[in-house]
Amino acid sequence: MRAERRFVALLALVLGLAACTTSPPLRGTGDLGVVVERAEDSILIVDTTERQAIGRVAGLGDLSHASVVFSRDGRYAFVFGRDGGLSKVDLLTGEIAARVVQAGNSIGGAISQDGRIVAVANYEPGGVRFFRSDDLSPVAEVPSTYGADGARSKVVGIEEIADNRFVFALYDADAIWTVGLEDGAAPEVERFAGVGKLPYDALLTPDGHHYIAGLFGEDGLVVLDLWDEGAAPRRILDGYGKGEEPLPVYKMPHLEGWSVAGDRLYLPAIGRHELLVVDRATFREIDRIPVHSQPVFAIARPDGRQVWVNFAHPDNDVIQVIDVPSGEIVEELRPGPGVLHMEFTPKGEAVWISVRDANRIDIVDTETFETVGSLEAEAPSGIFFTARAHRLGY
Amino acid sequence: MRAERRFVALLALVLGLAACTTSPPLRGTGDLGVVVERAEDSILIVDTTERQAIGRVAGLGDLSHASVVFSRDGRYAFVFGRDGGLSKVDLLTGEIAARVVQAGNSIGGAISQDGRIVAVANYEPGGVRFFRSDDLSPVAEVPSTYGADGARSKVVGIEEIADNRFVFALYDADAIWTVGLEDGAAPEVERFAGVGKLPYDALLTPDGHHYIAGLFGEDGLVVLDLWDEGAAPRRILDGYGKGEEPLPVYKMPHLEGWSVAGDRLYLPAIGRHELLVVDRATFREIDRIPVHSQPVFAIARPDGRQVWVNFAHPDNDVIQVIDVPSGEIVEELRPGPGVLHMEFTPKGEAVWISVRDANRIDIVDTETFETVGSLEAEAPSGIFFTARAHRLGY
Repeated sequence: MRAERRFVALLALVLGLAACTTSPPLRGTGDLGVVVERAEDSILIVDTTERQAIGRVAGLGDLSHASVVFSRDGRYAFVFGRDGGLSKVDLLTGEIAARVVQAGNSIGGAISQDGRIVAVANYEPGGVRFFRSDDLSPVAEVPSTYGADGARSKVVGIEEIADNRFVFALYDADAIWTVGLEDGAAPEVERFAGVGKLPYDALLTPDGHHYIAGLFGEDGLVVLDLWDEGAAPRRILDGYGKGEEPLPVYKMPHLEGWSVAGDRLYLPAIGRHELLVVDRATFREIDRIPVHSQPVFAIARPDGRQVWVNFAHPDNDVIQVIDVPSGEIVEELRPGPGVLHMEFTPKGEAVWISVRDANRIDIVDTETFETVGSLEAEAPSGIFFTARAHRLGY
Repeated sequence: MRAERRFVALLALVLGLAACTTSPPLRGTGDLGVVVERAEDSILIVDTTERQAIGRVAGLGDLSHASVVFSRDGRYAFVFGRDGGLSKVDLLTGEIAARVVQAGNSIGGAISQDGRIVAVANYEPGGVRFFRSDDLSPVAEVPSTYGADGARSKVVGIEEIADNRFVFALYDADAIWTVGLEDGAAPEVERFAGVGKLPYDALLTPDGHHYIAGLFGEDGLVVLDLWDEGAAPRRILDGYGKGEEPLPVYKMPHLEGWSVAGDRLYLPAIGRHELLVVDRATFREIDRIPVHSQPVFAIARPDGRQVWVNFAHPDNDVIQVIDVPSGEIVEELRPGPGVLHMEFTPKGEAVWISVRDANRIDIVDTETFETVGSLEAEAPSGIFFTARAHRLGY
């Protein structure tokens, strides 16, 4: 009997310990990230130190154009699905902590400077909806109503800015709006109309000083100086493709991929086999760099020493690397078919590359250009690391 | 007997669960930081979301001039004590994961771009020692030997740079060296001699492009272009105090506090009641801003919109805030006696301020300048947040 009693006690102890060892081990979140598996409804959770996947989370809806932002502690990923789904994923447990389907068609989102509010930019119905980051409960909505008949515009290019505000563009309304949310008060909206035809995407300079939107309906861009409260948006780079024979556009370049390296911006020229080099202070074109094909992303290594460029179909098996001081292409990589995205580790020693049609992520050393690691993924597209939690406009 | 057996089983289960609930809860590390308690041998672990201390770790030696860097996952703080102690602190458990006393007198350190190597700059014996970040086991040593008689210089201003290298200055040798460590190979050292008299501290520009050292023995500074492999260090701002009546210097300004905001550097002028405004491209002085007293730190908000300045004794109860676009002082705060350091939250919505002689940390909103939180701390000095893990030269 005594032996049996001891056995039962031991069994209970083992069960108790087993119950607690099923909870994930303690770990830091600064070296985590997610990879969007665009053909599935899932993301991979990855570890950039060990260079491996540590989990997969499914049930996130249509991720065909998904983007991701992070909570300020780096523990949670907010995944914006194309179908209007907003999911909060716990990177430590691999569980969905909260999820809402908040619109019919959405294009991306942002998290406020203080981390308390998640904003989603919606196509249908057009506008921006705001949620508490802790439980995704709704906080406010700003419909993108314009004109006399109460139509609502598609909303694109939303970014968080200083003073806990957001900025975004209204595609159909030719407008840029900023919104501030104070506790318990109605959203405070500032509206800039007539900024240019069909703003279709935008970026924030890394210092949060300038918001720059691309115009689908005109040959130019528009910039808003966020530090000058009286300033209206102004047109820049007017006619940057004018007078030259237009090429068919296979894919609109992503403006969030525009890069700022030192005192220059590197912009994919729409429909051309060139990068535009633009002076950051004057927003004037100062150079063009011929590249392999139509650029999609042109992304600076975090120190701005290199710009990495990928290309539209059918040339999307190539990456070119530009050395910023010399302006020369110093490397050409062919990771495989369907290179969709690149994400640098926070200090830039490596870059992770989505090779969609090879169902693979490649990890490349940015000094030697050697492939130092590789992961399997299902049709990977966007790659997002938690260091984005600490930067405005990511 | 059956009841007794059940009781024993239950007891064992409870003990088992109790054992596992004493392990800390899962949490992200992106919103953690440490505060150095300079009069004690301890640091506070703080949470910048809840704005509170969550632990204290003692046994870290002499912290009178301590600095801190972080592992790339944000979980571990490497604390460099003045007495040559190097401690690896686990921010999740509050335990010392590893500790070595590696020299007699040291001034600070850095962590390599890839996070695998921790480097310590030593006064006595002079040189740099390198350790594995996982267990602090020694990897290599570079003695700062110079001249014919084999003397060793004090080493200051160590920073990690791209391509997994380090850069530092040799105070007694008027030199700047860079070091690269390949696995299993001897350290590869590049030496620049005669850079100027007595380099005493240095900073890396946020893009890792330029390393700038202050000279104690001359009226000027020296800059090394890290992107130009053939370049020698060159002198800048020669005679920036020349021809004016020198004031007594109460405290040498910290160069790591020098700030880069947009295309300008803001430097505390040694011994003067001024900030120097320097063009980042040419390194020429373009303006001076009169301030309250002798500046110690001049630190830019992460977006570069504001520069916050504190001052040397006896005026170290004051902080002034400069609005970068206008160059005007827009706020003056008096948090209390002994304002030693300021650290911004990663996206800049708040700043944490050490008020040493009030044994207090104040948390101030950078938009409203209101104090939004306060913590007790024992003679707090340096404040360091884990977002530094993701930036070169922090």
